Amino acid sequence: MIQVRMLLMGVGNVGRRFLHVLNLKRESLRHRIGLELQVVGVADRSGVAVCAEGLDIQRILALKASGQGVSADPEWGRPGVSALEMVQETDADLLLEASPARMQDGQPGLACIEAALSKEMHVVTANKVPLVLAFPRLLALAQAHGVRLCFDATVAGGLPAINLGQRDLAAVEIVRLEGILNLTTNYILTRMADDGLSYEQALAEAQASGHAEADPSLDVEGWDAANKLVILAHSVLGYPATLHEVELEGITGITPAELAAGAADGKRLKLLATAEREGDRYRLSVRPTWLDAKHPMAQLGATEFGVVYYTDVCGVISASIVEETPLPTAAAMLRDVVSIYATP
Amino acid sequence: MIQVRMLLMGVGNVGRRFLHVLNLKRESLRHRIGLELQVVGVADRSGVAVCAEGLDIQRILALKASGQGVSADPEWGRPGVSALEMVQETDADLLLEASPARMQDGQPGLACIEAALSKEMHVVTANKVPLVLAFPRLLALAQAHGVRLCFDATVAGGLPAINLGQRDLAAVEIVRLEGILNLTTNYILTRMADDGLSYEQALAEAQASGHAEADPSLDVEGWDAANKLVILAHSVLGYPATLHEVELEGITGITPAELAAGAADGKRLKLLATAEREGDRYRLSVRPTWLDAKHPMAQLGATEFGVVYYTDVCGVISASIVEETPLPTAAAMLRDVVSIYATP
Repeated sequence: MIQVRMLLMGVGNVGRRFLHVLNLKRESLRHRIGLELQVVGVADRSGVAVCAEGLDIQRILALKASGQGVSADPEWGRPGVSALEMVQETDADLLLEASPARMQDGQPGLACIEAALSKEMHVVTANKVPLVLAFPRLLALAQAHGVRLCFDATVAGGLPAINLGQRDLAAVEIVRLEGILNLTTNYILTRMADDGLSYEQALAEAQASGHAEADPSLDVEGWDAANKLVILAHSVLGYPATLHEVELEGITGITPAELAAGAADGKRLKLLATAEREGDRYRLSVRPTWLDAKHPMAQLGATEFGVVYYTDVCGVISASIVEETPLPTAAAMLRDVVSIYATP
Repeated sequence: MIQVRMLLMGVGNVGRRFLHVLNLKRESLRHRIGLELQVVGVADRSGVAVCAEGLDIQRILALKASGQGVSADPEWGRPGVSALEMVQETDADLLLEASPARMQDGQPGLACIEAALSKEMHVVTANKVPLVLAFPRLLALAQAHGVRLCFDATVAGGLPAINLGQRDLAAVEIVRLEGILNLTTNYILTRMADDGLSYEQALAEAQASGHAEADPSLDVEGWDAANKLVILAHSVLGYPATLHEVELEGITGITPAELAAGAADGKRLKLLATAEREGDRYRLSVRPTWLDAKHPMAQLGATEFGVVYYTDVCGVISASIVEETPLPTAAAMLRDVVSIYATP
């Protein structure tokens, strides 16, 4: 039995669901894979809750469900203590990072990831920004300390898009990559195309159903997809891309009339992220793109992510996921944890 | 640099392409992954060719291209020596198994796989039958000798369908699995539906273009897909299925009129392999199945394989591959080799 003591940073949409999935799967992981997973610390905006013997996950979930922060726990709560202090001061084997990060500097996640790797803790993250800002440095740090940095949950939700590219296509050349990497825009475009909604109506509906943020600009302007594309470039294509070089066009100017005209020709408009091989580099873009009905991403529904790898000797490989809530993204974090400890 | 001495059994459609892919990728594997892959023996019906320092792959390919067996090589050829003798008598680290096997007893592949595992050689196989007949025994043998038995190339060609299920979904429950696992039948049904060909016309065309065997019965009656489903059941679902329990219906009775009528309702007929969870077991079937246009496998083209995993907490994950020739299947064997030696 391998015992793993984990710290969780961020108990929001993804972090909360991670605790839920962990709670569901704990017994079967112990039984089937020989993994004993304990959460010895959690951090949110309120502070932290820490218990060396393992927190009661249901108690933490109940606190959050009642609208309180984790530091409100009467026994384990430590109000005002930061996630970074928790990482620095708590004995643990692995950091789970599911916090929101500022686009400018990737904090507070970036500092916590660095601190964890430096302490020889593995890191499993669902947070894109630190990777986009510092991928080579973080990878080198992990290697220098002999630990793993896993981030399958950062791109395309619960779809193992990174694993597929990084592990299954390690021996082949990827000449082109395409992805539908942002759910908000896919939801909006699909509802506009299928149900004739205006952009504003579709956005309002997406916000009401939890498929768009109150401020949707990072999604609808393409930044979220561009971030994910940069992570795919570094990790799968071995190409050290920066966010600046992604040619970017959002979906705010699209009209239902355009979509209807395309549909009459059997085409679908998708916000497509693309990396195209050009000599020694890749050319990256995120833009609304008309796809033929037969294109593997054309039929993706409102709540689907997808990715297509065009290879030299392994054909064209497509994968997609239907993801109604971030539950699969949380499950992808658990997948990363299992992949660190389970040997083939 | 890790040196790997490999034996290849079977130099037909897949084996020959494996040598081609290896030849293409050898330098980049050495450079990028630190793997030095050598073929020290090959076997076909004529006998074997063996060279402890590594065979010249292009010389072997030239022999085959000229219609000769590998044992005709003037320097390395040993006519009449069997693959099993080669495995038993040659020092090597890994056996690549790409030979045709008899449905009844899995030979000659099965004996060679057993001999290799018993000698502590890893095995990478594209040959379904030995796995279908003896999966638990072969897996136990590999584990007892501390080596790997890899078979990603046996199911859905170059699509990492097994890896996806076995590694990426290890922590979740698969409640249902669907696959389009046989290319011959998918080719025939697609040509009948899209171009109005009769079954006989579509079959003849598939045979002429190399997408069907001279004797297509194992494909069109569903046996090939059933074999692959049994391998998925053992390896991904952890369910020890036998071929007998697969409910089986082939495509020989389908008419273009039926397909046209379905198409008028927006539906597509596919030979679908299905595993459906029922309590502690799975119910397995292979049969022609009408799919709604929105079903992830409905739009698969004539030369595509696909698989869909319906999970408890990781959404619905679909993957497919466009595979015009068995080149991606050969690339999947190389993927397995790399996965044995490359650490994450």
